[in-house]
Amino acid sequence: MKTEKRKRPGKIVLYDTTLRDGDQSEYINFSKEDKLRVLQELDRLGIDYVEGGWVDGNPRDTAFFEEARGLRLRHARLTAFGMTRRAGQRASRDSGLRAILGSGVAAATLVGKAWDLQIQEVLRISQAENLRMIEDSLAFVKRGVKEVFFDAEHFFEGYLSNPEYAVRCLRAAESAGADCLVLCDTNGGMIPAVVQRVVREVRGLVRAALGIHTHNDAEMAVANTLAAVEEGVTQVQGTINGYGERCGNANLCSIIPTLQFKMNRACLPPRKMALLRRCSRVVAELANQSPSRQQPYVGDSAFAHKGGIHISAVRRNPRAYEHVLPEAVGNRRKILVSDLSGKATVLEKAREYNLDLSGKEGSVQEILDTLKLMEKQGYRYEGAEASFELLMKKALGKKRKFFRLLGFRVLDEKKQEKEPPYSEATVMIEVDGRVEHTAAEGKGPVNALDHALRKALEKFYPQLRSVELLDYKVRVLPAKEGTASQVRVLLECWDGKRKWTTVGVSHNIIEASWQALLDAVDYRLQLD
Amino acid sequence: MKTEKRKRPGKIVLYDTTLRDGDQSEYINFSKEDKLRVLQELDRLGIDYVEGGWVDGNPRDTAFFEEARGLRLRHARLTAFGMTRRAGQRASRDSGLRAILGSGVAAATLVGKAWDLQIQEVLRISQAENLRMIEDSLAFVKRGVKEVFFDAEHFFEGYLSNPEYAVRCLRAAESAGADCLVLCDTNGGMIPAVVQRVVREVRGLVRAALGIHTHNDAEMAVANTLAAVEEGVTQVQGTINGYGERCGNANLCSIIPTLQFKMNRACLPPRKMALLRRCSRVVAELANQSPSRQQPYVGDSAFAHKGGIHISAVRRNPRAYEHVLPEAVGNRRKILVSDLSGKATVLEKAREYNLDLSGKEGSVQEILDTLKLMEKQGYRYEGAEASFELLMKKALGKKRKFFRLLGFRVLDEKKQEKEPPYSEATVMIEVDGRVEHTAAEGKGPVNALDHALRKALEKFYPQLRSVELLDYKVRVLPAKEGTASQVRVLLECWDGKRKWTTVGVSHNIIEASWQALLDAVDYRLQLD
Repeated sequence: MKTEKRKRPGKIVLYDTTLRDGDQSEYINFSKEDKLRVLQELDRLGIDYVEGGWVDGNPRDTAFFEEARGLRLRHARLTAFGMTRRAGQRASRDSGLRAILGSGVAAATLVGKAWDLQIQEVLRISQAENLRMIEDSLAFVKRGVKEVFFDAEHFFEGYLSNPEYAVRCLRAAESAGADCLVLCDTNGGMIPAVVQRVVREVRGLVRAALGIHTHNDAEMAVANTLAAVEEGVTQVQGTINGYGERCGNANLCSIIPTLQFKMNRACLPPRKMALLRRCSRVVAELANQSPSRQQPYVGDSAFAHKGGIHISAVRRNPRAYEHVLPEAVGNRRKILVSDLSGKATVLEKAREYNLDLSGKEGSVQEILDTLKLMEKQGYRYEGAEASFELLMKKALGKKRKFFRLLGFRVLDEKKQEKEPPYSEATVMIEVDGRVEHTAAEGKGPVNALDHALRKALEKFYPQLRSVELLDYKVRVLPAKEGTASQVRVLLECWDGKRKWTTVGVSHNIIEASWQALLDAVDYRLQLD
Repeated sequence: MKTEKRKRPGKIVLYDTTLRDGDQSEYINFSKEDKLRVLQELDRLGIDYVEGGWVDGNPRDTAFFEEARGLRLRHARLTAFGMTRRAGQRASRDSGLRAILGSGVAAATLVGKAWDLQIQEVLRISQAENLRMIEDSLAFVKRGVKEVFFDAEHFFEGYLSNPEYAVRCLRAAESAGADCLVLCDTNGGMIPAVVQRVVREVRGLVRAALGIHTHNDAEMAVANTLAAVEEGVTQVQGTINGYGERCGNANLCSIIPTLQFKMNRACLPPRKMALLRRCSRVVAELANQSPSRQQPYVGDSAFAHKGGIHISAVRRNPRAYEHVLPEAVGNRRKILVSDLSGKATVLEKAREYNLDLSGKEGSVQEILDTLKLMEKQGYRYEGAEASFELLMKKALGKKRKFFRLLGFRVLDEKKQEKEPPYSEATVMIEVDGRVEHTAAEGKGPVNALDHALRKALEKFYPQLRSVELLDYKVRVLPAKEGTASQVRVLLECWDGKRKWTTVGVSHNIIEASWQALLDAVDYRLQLD
């Protein structure tokens, strides 16, 4: 990574803390292997600094920093995180600071206090000792690493409470050689107007580069970050997908494209922006979080269009309904297969599925008619494209029949008030004239049916063994019929390579689930 | 609702579009009943205007507006939504505009174009005709309703492309009597600096009140809204939980507390702010969306604290790690190691149910323990208070047992590919030593079970005949187990006088439904 490039005016330095602050999220817990993969993914995307975590003797992170040293990073600089020394101790004796130097990183970030209330009520030390802690610690670490950044915790509250002292904390870090003074909105409660005023004032009082680190407790993390950039901050800290404790950190997946496309501030190397969605997905996968469909820029629904007029307008001029081109961030336009859709949508989808519809006006009309009928019955294909693909293939005579159902039976029996019912299913199918009759139990009727069906089919189609059910959703369709309402079931499957979703609708939840199960199995079989 | 109060300088007018723009979300589809409940919930919270939807002949919304007329709203004004008249037509002939007048609302919002590119490329009409469409339509509707608002679609793109024309669109609406000119960031791609500049300029060019309507495509919806308020906009449009198509709309659950607590702009009546979390939850439940744990202000994790130092610091001074007090928005601090809160809620609820808990420390503890256990298993009582009331009554020994279950059996049998399965249930119960054994069929297994249970019970308790099942909701709980996932069932009942909701949770959907059914019946029986 070229330092000159980073210092060129206008270039924003990206600092990712997914591996520390993201890992603080209540629901995220990266393994060492996850952390190594995230690091490589962030390097590939073109992030400048990747904060690897605390270097404080925690075995997972010690091992992570050790193994990370062996990776050849093309762009990113791995950064260690630590705290200023303890009160009343020498920096050179502080085990955390020594561990940072021992980790072999070229950059480190130290967090220290900058709010008089915290120093008095939480740390219970003198303001002068806090300044010495900052100065000693940064100076000590700076001797062993190329770059040291200072995270000024609660900087905004500190500045609003005692501006003079807050700035003295920054100056202590500056005089110790800090390469960047990072203003932290630790509680996440600031609003852009305040951030902007504070940064503007601070800007004139220190010489070192400024950074910004925000949290999303007022849904302002991204806006506060960009407000700070407008006032001259050059280092931006955040996490992929906004992961972080409480309401999360500033979301780099939103900040990066807005900086580049809307504020004309370069931050990623050219051609890297299109990797943004991929990076968001890989990190979500490693964090074991389902990706948010509605996530700005990178979510599945971010460029989803409903309704005919809307769609033809987007075709005429994407600017009419899209704020940026989806491809620019590696996303794609999603034309929702909805009851308002027409021929254009069907043709678009056929292209996507590699189905040739040219000269097949009749089939297109048949697909449209079927679609209308199915949607009237409560089917929705927006979230169940595998079922839609099957529907199209069927209309085109391209859907092979792999088996025939001869019948099933599901029994739920409860014999005691306190015990859940026992569920058992039997399934009878026919494949090429051979009849297979199976029985299975399960956690509930649908699960029992699922087991019995697979038991019957896997004999003939062993490729189904790799199919896993990832997600099962049930939606009761609006109608005033209580337990006789129609239900719509969505099933998501995964076979190690691809994910697909299918749909079923019925008054009977067993039947709706059955339909979705059949489509799920059928979709996989049609692929061979 | 007092109009003077709304017009007092400084007061921000809250305009909710959950029922229209929220309902546009790819995954939300409110029923008429859902919409009526959302309307009442928003009224209770103190929202000024509730947009009910398009009034365009869609049967669900026609019925909704009709029934809504019968509701006594304490604060909110129900608002109808429509489009400016078609090109080349008279406003008085436009069926949409006539439908608005026919719906009996006191306020209406009309959306029209304000971007030259849209007018030329999408509408393909002259700029002059577009101005006439705006003016005619607003003037026509204004004759029949007290207040008319103009949603200027794509206003910001329009202003950036052709400021003079965009402002002429606003003026056309103004001269037709518009009570508020709402600047819409339809594509959701604006950033606060641009919004602020445009609003500041427009502010000097029109006299009517200004409104703001934003989308979240750049994760800026809340920030853009507040930036507009800082420049003098007085009407704020948004949705509960930010529901809306693509990346969602401006989230009122974040905007409201930030306005009130951080910008000192009153918007909710005093004492209402503490209902915010409840409102967010009820709307999520009705929208069948799992609430986001990380949602600012109202999410489960919004005030979650990890680690000892953090916690003792928060105890010493909540400001140390909390940007607002959780109770202020009806949320609570979540101490992740040992959760000690909750007692206050239980006492509060007991008062609500007229249960005397004074001097019953043991019972309170028992309720808290049970609650904790149940929530761990996936039960949620926010939307199912009847089940919670039963739980409390049971802990206090005030729950009478009306019958005992000896067993049930549910059979679903499918004999042909094209036909839905046949469902049959048998139920055996005992009431005062008398055994009743019944059988019934139904549309699906739960419906059959419901029929068999009522058949058995109505003999002994004829008051159950008036109990109607209004709504049945199923949510698959997050866990990647496919069809073996846990499900939570919510049942809403009505006996002609009151509505109540109950909950059941199990791996088996039949068992979860059974629990909710039992609670529903039990709740009614306990009333006598």
